Amino acid sequence: MKEKIVAILSGGMDSTTLVYQLSLVGYEVACLSFDYGQRHVKELEAAKRTTKRLGLEHIIIPFGAEMKYLVSGSALTDTAQEVPQGHYAADNMKATVVPNRNMIMLALAAGYAITFGARKLAYGAHAGDHTIYPDCRPEFAEAMTKVLELCHFDGGIQLIAPFMNISKSDICVIGRDLGVPYKNTWTCYAGLDKPCGVCGSCVERAEAFAFAGIPDPLLQEDK
Amino acid sequence: MKEKIVAILSGGMDSTTLVYQLSLVGYEVACLSFDYGQRHVKELEAAKRTTKRLGLEHIIIPFGAEMKYLVSGSALTDTAQEVPQGHYAADNMKATVVPNRNMIMLALAAGYAITFGARKLAYGAHAGDHTIYPDCRPEFAEAMTKVLELCHFDGGIQLIAPFMNISKSDICVIGRDLGVPYKNTWTCYAGLDKPCGVCGSCVERAEAFAFAGIPDPLLQEDK
Repeated sequence: MKEKIVAILSGGMDSTTLVYQLSLVGYEVACLSFDYGQRHVKELEAAKRTTKRLGLEHIIIPFGAEMKYLVSGSALTDTAQEVPQGHYAADNMKATVVPNRNMIMLALAAGYAITFGARKLAYGAHAGDHTIYPDCRPEFAEAMTKVLELCHFDGGIQLIAPFMNISKSDICVIGRDLGVPYKNTWTCYAGLDKPCGVCGSCVERAEAFAFAGIPDPLLQEDK
Repeated sequence: MKEKIVAILSGGMDSTTLVYQLSLVGYEVACLSFDYGQRHVKELEAAKRTTKRLGLEHIIIPFGAEMKYLVSGSALTDTAQEVPQGHYAADNMKATVVPNRNMIMLALAAGYAITFGARKLAYGAHAGDHTIYPDCRPEFAEAMTKVLELCHFDGGIQLIAPFMNISKSDICVIGRDLGVPYKNTWTCYAGLDKPCGVCGSCVERAEAFAFAGIPDPLLQEDK
Protein backbone atom coordinates (compact mmCIF):
# COMPACT_ATOMS: atom_id res chain seq x y z
CA MET A 1 0.00 0.00 0.00
CA LYS A 2 1.34 3.41 -0.96
CA GLU A 3 2.16 6.00 1.67
CA LYS A 4 -0.27 8.90 1.56
CA ILE A 5 0.76 12.52 1.15
CA VAL A 6 -1.17 15.76 0.62
CA ALA A 7 0.26 18.29 -1.84
CA ILE A 8 -0.75 21.90 -2.39
CA LEU A 9 -1.25 22.36 -6.13
CA SER A 10 -1.68 25.85 -7.55
CA GLY A 11 -1.48 24.74 -11.16
CA GLY A 12 1.79 26.61 -11.70
CA MET A 13 5.08 25.05 -12.77
CA ASP A 14 6.51 24.48 -9.27
CA SER A 15 3.63 22.65 -7.62
CA THR A 16 2.84 20.71 -10.78
CA THR A 17 6.44 19.47 -10.94
CA LEU A 18 6.19 18.60 -7.25
CA VAL A 19 3.03 16.52 -7.76
CA TYR A 20 4.60 14.61 -10.67
CA GLN A 21 7.74 13.98 -8.61
CA LEU A 22 5.78 12.71 -5.59
CA SER A 23 3.62 10.45 -7.76
CA LEU A 24 6.62 9.04 -9.60
CA VAL A 25 8.50 8.20 -6.38
CA GLY A 26 5.56 6.15 -5.14
CA TYR A 27 3.29 8.28 -2.94
CA GLU A 28 -0.49 8.23 -3.05
CA VAL A 29 -0.93 11.97 -3.60
CA ALA A 30 -4.07 13.92 -2.74
CA CYS A 31 -4.04 17.47 -4.09
CA LEU A 32 -5.48 20.61 -2.60
CA SER A 33 -6.05 23.86 -4.48
CA PHE A 34 -7.44 27.19 -3.41
CA ASP A 35 -9.71 29.62 -5.18
CA TYR A 36 -8.94 32.61 -2.97
CA GLY A 37 -10.19 35.19 -5.43
CA GLN A 38 -7.40 35.16 -7.99
CA ARG A 39 -8.02 37.46 -10.95
CA HIS A 40 -8.62 34.44 -13.17
CA VAL A 41 -9.01 30.68 -12.84
CA LYS A 42 -6.56 29.54 -15.54
CA GLU A 43 -4.14 28.16 -12.91
CA LEU A 44 -6.94 26.15 -11.30
CA GLU A 45 -8.02 24.79 -14.68
CA ALA A 46 -4.43 23.72 -15.28
CA ALA A 47 -4.36 22.04 -11.83
CA LYS A 48 -7.52 20.07 -12.72
CA ARG A 49 -5.95 18.83 -15.95
CA THR A 50 -2.91 17.60 -14.00
CA THR A 51 -4.86 15.66 -11.37
CA LYS A 52 -7.21 14.25 -13.98
CA ARG A 53 -4.25 13.07 -16.06
CA LEU A 54 -2.57 11.49 -13.02
CA GLY A 55 -5.84 10.14 -11.56
CA LEU A 56 -5.39 11.84 -8.18
CA GLU A 57 -7.86 12.91 -5.51
CA HIS A 58 -8.22 16.68 -5.78
CA ILE A 59 -10.16 19.15 -3.67
CA ILE A 60 -10.53 22.80 -4.61
CA ILE A 61 -11.42 25.11 -1.74
CA PRO A 62 -13.44 28.12 -2.82
CA PHE A 63 -12.98 31.09 -0.48
CA GLY A 64 -16.34 32.69 0.26
CA ALA A 65 -16.80 36.45 0.42
CA GLU A 66 -15.87 36.57 4.11
CA MET A 67 -12.61 34.65 3.66
CA LYS A 68 -11.75 36.73 0.61
CA TYR A 69 -12.19 39.83 2.74
CA LEU A 70 -9.70 38.45 5.30
CA VAL A 71 -6.97 38.26 2.68
CA SER A 72 -7.95 41.32 0.64
CA GLY A 73 -5.72 44.21 -0.35
CA SER A 74 -3.41 42.31 -2.72
CA ALA A 75 -2.95 43.15 -6.38
CA LEU A 76 -3.50 39.44 -7.08
CA THR A 77 -7.06 39.54 -5.77
CA ASP A 78 -8.06 43.19 -6.00
CA THR A 79 -8.92 44.09 -9.58
CA ALA A 80 -8.79 47.79 -8.68
CA GLN A 81 -5.01 47.46 -8.30
CA GLU A 82 -2.60 47.12 -11.18
CA VAL A 83 -0.46 43.98 -11.29
CA PRO A 84 3.12 45.22 -11.19
CA GLN A 85 5.33 44.37 -14.15
CA GLY A 86 9.01 43.53 -14.27
CA HIS A 87 11.21 41.19 -12.30
CA TYR A 88 10.14 39.51 -9.06
CA ALA A 89 13.10 40.86 -7.12
CA ALA A 90 11.79 44.40 -7.45
CA ASP A 91 10.23 46.05 -4.45
CA ASN A 92 6.93 46.70 -6.21
CA MET A 93 6.20 42.95 -6.19
CA LYS A 94 5.29 43.35 -2.52
CA ALA A 95 1.88 44.42 -3.84
CA THR A 96 1.32 40.81 -4.91
CA VAL A 97 1.52 39.49 -1.33
CA VAL A 98 -1.74 37.87 -0.21
CA PRO A 99 -1.83 38.23 3.62
CA ASN A 100 -0.64 35.01 5.25
CA ARG A 101 -1.52 32.93 2.20
CA ASN A 102 0.99 30.15 2.76
CA MET A 103 0.14 29.59 6.43
CA ILE A 104 -3.58 29.51 5.62
CA MET A 105 -3.03 27.00 2.82
CA LEU A 106 -0.68 24.83 4.90
CA ALA A 107 -3.01 24.86 7.91
CA LEU A 108 -5.99 23.77 5.82
CA ALA A 109 -3.84 21.19 4.02
CA ALA A 110 -2.71 19.75 7.36
CA GLY A 111 -6.35 19.38 8.41
CA TYR A 112 -6.96 17.59 5.11
CA ALA A 113 -3.91 15.37 5.68
CA ILE A 114 -5.27 14.29 9.07
CA THR A 115 -8.70 13.56 7.57
CA PHE A 116 -7.16 11.82 4.52
CA GLY A 117 -4.95 9.68 6.76
CA ALA A 118 -1.64 11.14 5.56
CA ARG A 119 1.25 12.03 7.85
CA LYS A 120 3.04 14.17 5.26
CA LEU A 121 2.28 17.42 3.52
CA ALA A 122 4.25 18.84 0.59
CA TYR A 123 4.43 22.26 -1.01
CA GLY A 124 6.45 23.81 -3.78
CA ALA A 125 8.04 26.91 -2.24
CA HIS A 126 11.41 27.60 -3.88
CA ALA A 127 14.48 29.77 -3.49
CA GLY A 128 13.40 32.33 -6.08
CA ASP A 129 10.47 33.43 -3.91
CA HIS A 130 12.51 34.19 -0.81
CA THR A 131 13.38 37.81 -1.14
CA ILE A 132 9.85 38.98 -1.75
CA TYR A 133 7.54 36.78 0.30
CA PRO A 134 8.23 36.26 4.03
CA ASP A 135 6.14 33.08 3.96
CA CYS A 136 8.31 31.46 1.28
CA ARG A 137 11.58 31.86 3.20
CA PRO A 138 13.42 28.90 4.73
CA GLU A 139 12.98 30.24 8.28
CA PHE A 140 9.21 30.38 7.76
CA ALA A 141 9.22 26.81 6.43
CA GLU A 142 11.29 25.68 9.44
CA ALA A 143 8.86 27.32 11.85
CA MET A 144 5.89 25.80 10.00
CA THR A 145 7.62 22.41 10.14
CA LYS A 146 7.87 22.71 13.91
CA VAL A 147 4.29 23.80 14.51
CA LEU A 148 2.92 21.13 12.16
CA GLU A 149 4.72 18.50 14.23
CA LEU A 150 2.77 19.75 17.25
CA CYS A 151 -0.67 20.29 15.72
CA HIS A 152 -1.94 16.74 16.17
CA PHE A 153 -1.32 13.54 18.10
CA ASP A 154 1.73 11.34 17.60
CA GLY A 155 4.14 13.73 15.93
CA GLY A 156 1.61 15.65 13.87
CA ILE A 157 2.20 16.29 10.19
CA GLN A 158 5.61 16.28 8.49
CA LEU A 159 6.17 19.19 6.09
CA ILE A 160 8.09 18.43 2.89
CA ALA A 161 9.44 21.31 0.79
CA PRO A 162 11.88 19.68 -1.63
CA PHE A 163 12.40 22.83 -3.72
CA MET A 164 13.15 25.13 -0.79
CA ASN A 165 16.83 25.52 -1.67
CA ILE A 166 16.68 25.39 -5.46
CA SER A 167 15.48 27.86 -8.07
CA LYS A 168 12.57 27.79 -10.49
CA SER A 169 15.16 27.08 -13.21
CA ASP A 170 16.34 23.97 -11.31
CA ILE A 171 12.70 22.90 -10.90
CA CYS A 172 12.22 23.22 -14.66
CA VAL A 173 15.22 20.95 -15.23
CA ILE A 174 13.71 18.35 -12.87
CA GLY A 175 10.36 18.62 -14.61
CA ARG A 176 11.98 18.34 -18.02
CA ASP A 177 13.71 15.11 -16.97
CA LEU A 178 10.49 13.74 -15.42
CA GLY A 179 8.56 14.58 -18.58
CA VAL A 180 6.13 16.96 -16.89
CA PRO A 181 3.70 18.25 -19.54
CA TYR A 182 4.13 21.96 -18.86
CA LYS A 183 1.32 22.76 -21.27
CA ASN A 184 -0.90 21.86 -18.29
CA THR A 185 0.46 24.68 -16.14
CA TRP A 186 -0.26 28.40 -16.00
CA THR A 187 1.99 31.11 -14.58
CA CYS A 188 0.94 34.52 -15.95
CA TYR A 189 -0.91 36.91 -13.64
CA ALA A 190 -3.12 37.99 -16.54
CA GLY A 191 -5.86 35.63 -17.71
CA LEU A 192 -5.50 36.04 -21.47
CA ASP A 193 -5.32 33.23 -24.04
CA LYS A 194 -1.54 33.49 -24.10
CA PRO A 195 0.84 34.53 -21.30
CA CYS A 196 1.37 38.32 -21.30
CA GLY A 197 5.15 37.94 -21.24
CA VAL A 198 5.78 41.05 -19.17
CA CYS A 199 4.52 40.33 -15.62
CA GLY A 200 7.00 39.13 -12.98
CA SER A 201 5.72 35.57 -13.22
CA CYS A 202 6.13 35.45 -17.01
CA VAL A 203 9.67 36.84 -16.78
CA GLU A 204 10.66 34.20 -14.23
CA ARG A 205 9.03 31.38 -16.21
CA ALA A 206 10.89 32.42 -19.36
CA GLU A 207 14.20 32.38 -17.47
CA ALA A 208 13.46 28.87 -16.19
CA PHE A 209 12.69 27.43 -19.65
CA ALA A 210 15.76 29.13 -21.10
CA PHE A 211 17.92 27.58 -18.35
CA ALA A 212 16.43 24.12 -18.94
CA GLY A 213 16.96 24.52 -22.65
CA ILE A 214 13.43 23.56 -23.64
CA PRO A 215 10.67 25.61 -25.26
CA ASP A 216 7.66 26.71 -23.20
CA PRO A 217 4.72 24.84 -24.76
CA LEU A 218 2.40 27.73 -23.86
CA LEU A 219 4.39 30.00 -26.19
CA GLN A 220 4.41 27.60 -29.14
CA GLU A 221 1.88 28.28 -31.89
CA ASP A 222 1.14 24.57 -32.36
CA LYS A 223 0.67 23.72 -28.67
CA MET B 1 -5.88 56.21 18.60
CA LYS B 2 -6.39 52.74 20.05
CA GLU B 3 -4.05 49.91 19.14
CA LYS B 4 -5.76 47.33 16.97
CA ILE B 5 -5.98 43.63 17.82
CA VAL B 6 -7.83 40.69 16.30
CA ALA B 7 -9.43 38.17 18.69
CA ILE B 8 -10.84 34.75 17.91
CA LEU B 9 -14.30 34.61 19.49
CA SER B 10 -16.15 31.30 19.69
CA GLY B 11 -18.94 32.59 21.90
CA GLY B 12 -17.86 30.39 24.80
CA MET B 13 -16.78 31.62 28.24
CA ASP B 14 -13.05 31.79 27.57
CA SER B 15 -12.97 33.83 24.37
CA THR B 16 -15.82 36.06 25.55
CA THR B 17 -13.88 36.87 28.73
CA LEU B 18 -10.82 37.54 26.55
CA VAL B 19 -12.70 40.00 24.33
CA TYR B 20 -14.08 41.90 27.35
CA GLN B 21 -10.60 42.01 28.89
CA LEU B 22 -8.97 43.31 25.68
CA SER B 23 -11.68 45.94 25.20
CA LEU B 24 -11.45 47.11 28.79
CA VAL B 25 -7.66 47.51 28.68
CA GLY B 26 -7.97 49.80 25.67
CA TYR B 27 -7.58 47.82 22.45
CA GLU B 28 -9.66 48.30 19.34
CA VAL B 29 -10.79 44.69 19.04
CA ALA B 30 -11.96 43.06 15.81
CA CYS B 31 -13.51 39.64 16.36
CA LEU B 32 -13.38 36.59 14.14
CA SER B 33 -15.67 33.56 14.49
CA PHE B 34 -15.90 30.35 12.51
CA ASP B 35 -18.90 28.33 11.44
CA TYR B 36 -16.99 25.14 10.71
CA GLY B 37 -20.00 22.87 10.83
CA GLN B 38 -20.66 22.74 14.57
CA ARG B 39 -23.75 20.74 15.48
CA HIS B 40 -25.55 23.95 16.39
CA VAL B 41 -25.05 27.71 16.12
CA LYS B 42 -25.85 28.71 19.70
CA GLU B 43 -22.22 29.62 20.39
CA LEU B 44 -22.12 31.84 17.31
CA GLU B 45 -25.35 33.53 18.30
CA ALA B 46 -23.83 34.23 21.71
CA ALA B 47 -20.72 35.64 20.00
CA LYS B 48 -22.90 38.01 17.97
CA ARG B 49 -24.62 39.27 21.12
CA THR B 50 -21.21 40.01 22.68
CA THR B 51 -19.83 42.00 19.73
CA LYS B 52 -23.12 43.86 19.27
CA ARG B 53 -23.13 44.81 22.95
CA LEU B 54 -19.50 45.97 22.80
CA GLY B 55 -19.88 47.59 19.37
CA LEU B 56 -17.00 45.64 17.79
CA GLU B 57 -16.20 44.70 14.20
CA HIS B 58 -17.07 41.02 13.82
CA ILE B 59 -16.62 38.65 10.90
CA ILE B 60 -18.04 35.14 10.87
CA ILE B 61 -16.38 32.77 8.42
CA PRO B 62 -18.72 30.10 7.13
CA PHE B 63 -16.86 26.95 6.05
CA GLY B 64 -18.22 25.72 2.73
CA ALA B 65 -18.77 22.03 2.00
CA GLU B 66 -15.17 21.57 0.79
CA MET B 67 -13.62 23.13 3.89
CA LYS B 68 -15.94 21.16 6.14
CA TYR B 69 -14.74 18.00 4.41
CA LEU B 70 -11.11 18.91 5.17
CA VAL B 71 -11.82 18.92 8.90
CA SER B 72 -14.41 16.15 8.97
CA GLY B 73 -14.39 13.10 11.20
CA SER B 74 -14.94 14.86 14.54
CA ALA B 75 -17.86 14.19 16.87
CA LEU B 76 -18.30 17.97 17.03
CA THR B 77 -19.12 18.22 13.35
CA ASP B 78 -20.27 14.73 12.37
CA THR B 79 -23.83 14.19 13.54
CA ALA B 80 -23.46 10.44 12.92
CA GLN B 81 -21.08 10.28 15.90
CA GLU B 82 -22.17 10.54 19.51
CA VAL B 83 -20.72 13.38 21.57
CA PRO B 84 -18.85 11.70 24.43
CA GLN B 85 -20.06 12.47 27.95
CA GLY B 86 -18.10 12.93 31.15
CA HIS B 87 -14.98 14.83 32.06
CA TYR B 88 -12.66 16.39 29.51
CA ALA B 89 -9.63 14.59 30.83
CA ALA B 90 -11.01 11.25 29.68
CA ASP B 91 -9.54 9.60 26.64
CA ASN B 92 -12.86 9.49 24.79
CA MET B 93 -12.78 13.27 24.44
CA LYS B 94 -10.25 12.76 21.65
CA ALA B 95 -13.32 12.22 19.45
CA THR B 96 -14.06 15.93 19.79
CA VAL B 97 -10.80 16.95 18.10
CA VAL B 98 -11.42 18.87 14.87
CA PRO B 99 -8.31 18.29 12.70
CA ASN B 100 -5.92 21.24 13.00
CA ARG B 101 -8.71 23.60 14.06
CA ASN B 102 -6.58 26.04 16.02
CA MET B 103 -3.89 26.46 13.37
CA ILE B 104 -6.54 27.02 10.70
CA MET B 105 -8.30 29.62 12.84
CA LEU B 106 -5.05 31.37 13.81
CA ALA B 107 -3.77 31.40 10.22
CA LEU B 108 -6.99 32.97 8.94
CA ALA B 109 -7.05 35.39 11.87
CA ALA B 110 -3.47 36.48 11.10
CA GLY B 111 -4.50 37.20 7.50
CA TYR B 112 -7.37 39.25 8.90
CA ALA B 113 -5.01 41.07 11.28
CA ILE B 114 -2.77 42.08 8.37
CA THR B 115 -5.76 43.31 6.36
CA PHE B 116 -7.30 45.05 9.41
CA GLY B 117 -3.99 46.77 10.18
CA ALA B 118 -3.41 45.00 13.51
CA ARG B 119 -0.04 43.66 14.65
CA LYS B 120 -1.50 41.48 17.41
CA LEU B 121 -3.76 38.45 17.51
CA ALA B 122 -5.33 37.02 20.67
CA TYR B 123 -6.97 33.69 21.47
CA GLY B 124 -8.40 32.10 24.57
CA ALA B 125 -6.61 28.75 24.87
CA HIS B 126 -6.28 27.79 28.54
CA ALA B 127 -4.54 25.26 30.75
CA GLY B 128 -7.59 23.00 31.09
CA ASP B 129 -7.47 22.09 27.40
CA HIS B 130 -3.87 20.89 27.37
CA THR B 131 -4.14 17.22 28.04
CA ILE B 132 -6.65 16.53 25.30
CA TYR B 133 -5.91 18.86 22.42
CA PRO B 134 -2.37 19.07 21.01
CA ASP B 135 -3.16 22.46 19.51
CA CYS B 136 -4.07 23.96 22.91
CA ARG B 137 -0.76 23.08 24.57
CA PRO B 138 1.85 25.72 25.44
CA GLU B 139 4.42 24.19 23.09
CA PHE B 140 1.98 24.52 20.19
CA ALA B 141 1.28 28.15 21.14
CA GLU B 142 5.03 28.82 21.32
CA ALA B 143 5.58 27.32 17.87
CA MET B 144 2.61 29.30 16.48
CA THR B 145 4.05 32.44 18.07
CA LYS B 146 7.31 31.87 16.23
CA VAL B 147 5.77 31.18 12.83
CA LEU B 148 3.38 34.13 13.11
CA GLU B 149 6.39 36.41 13.67
CA LEU B 150 7.73 35.18 10.31
CA CYS B 151 4.54 35.15 8.23
CA HIS B 152 4.67 38.80 7.15
CA PHE B 153 6.99 41.78 6.83
CA ASP B 154 8.47 43.65 9.79
CA GLY B 155 8.04 41.10 12.55
CA GLY B 156 4.76 39.61 11.44
CA ILE B 157 1.91 39.15 13.89
CA GLN B 158 2.33 38.87 17.67
CA LEU B 159 0.27 36.09 19.26
CA ILE B 160 -1.29 36.83 22.66
CA ALA B 161 -2.68 33.95 24.75
CA PRO B 162 -3.21 35.45 28.22
CA PHE B 163 -5.05 32.39 29.58
CA MET B 164 -2.44 29.84 28.48
CA ASN B 165 -1.26 29.08 32.00
CA ILE B 166 -4.50 29.46 33.95
CA SER B 167 -7.62 27.30 34.21
CA LYS B 168 -11.19 27.88 33.09
CA SER B 169 -12.00 28.47 36.78
CA ASP B 170 -9.43 31.27 36.94
CA ILE B 171 -10.90 32.74 33.74
CA CYS B 172 -14.35 32.73 35.36
CA VAL B 173 -12.96 34.66 38.32
CA ILE B 174 -11.47 37.25 35.93
CA GLY B 175 -14.78 37.50 34.06
CA ARG B 176 -16.71 37.82 37.30
CA ASP B 177 -14.53 40.75 38.36
CA LEU B 178 -14.79 42.38 34.91
CA GLY B 179 -18.57 41.99 34.96
CA VAL B 180 -18.73 39.79 31.85
CA PRO B 181 -22.41 38.97 31.18
CA TYR B 182 -22.04 35.18 30.92
CA LYS B 183 -25.66 34.88 29.85
CA ASN B 184 -24.25 35.85 26.42
CA THR B 185 -22.05 32.76 26.21
CA TRP B 186 -22.73 29.15 25.28
CA THR B 187 -20.66 26.12 26.23
CA CYS B 188 -22.77 22.95 25.90
CA TYR B 189 -22.11 20.63 22.94
CA ALA B 190 -25.85 20.01 22.60
CA GLY B 191 -28.02 22.75 21.08
CA LEU B 192 -31.02 22.51 23.41
CA ASP B 193 -32.75 25.45 25.11
CA LYS B 194 -30.81 24.77 28.32
CA PRO B 195 -27.30 23.29 28.72
CA CYS B 196 -27.46 19.47 28.91
CA GLY B 197 -25.35 19.39 32.09
CA VAL B 198 -23.63 16.09 31.26
CA CYS B 199 -21.26 16.74 28.34
CA GLY B 200 -17.58 17.46 29.05
CA SER B 201 -18.05 21.15 28.34
CA CYS B 202 -20.98 21.46 30.76
CA VAL B 203 -19.06 19.67 33.52
CA GLU B 204 -16.08 22.00 33.12
CA ARG B 205 -18.28 25.10 33.01
CA ALA B 206 -20.07 24.07 36.22
CA GLU B 207 -16.69 23.60 37.95
CA ALA B 208 -15.62 27.10 36.87
CA PHE B 209 -18.75 28.81 38.19
CA ALA B 210 -18.53 26.87 41.45
CA PHE B 211 -14.89 27.97 41.84
CA ALA B 212 -15.77 31.62 41.15
CA GLY B 213 -18.64 31.39 43.59
CA ILE B 214 -21.25 32.82 41.23
CA PRO B 215 -24.33 31.21 39.67
CA ASP B 216 -24.34 30.35 35.96
CA PRO B 217 -26.99 32.65 34.45
CA LEU B 218 -27.81 30.00 31.83
CA LEU B 219 -28.98 27.67 34.62
CA GLN B 220 -31.18 30.23 36.38
CA GLU B 221 -34.89 30.08 35.61
CA ASP B 222 -35.18 33.87 35.45
CA LYS B 223 -32.19 34.42 33.16
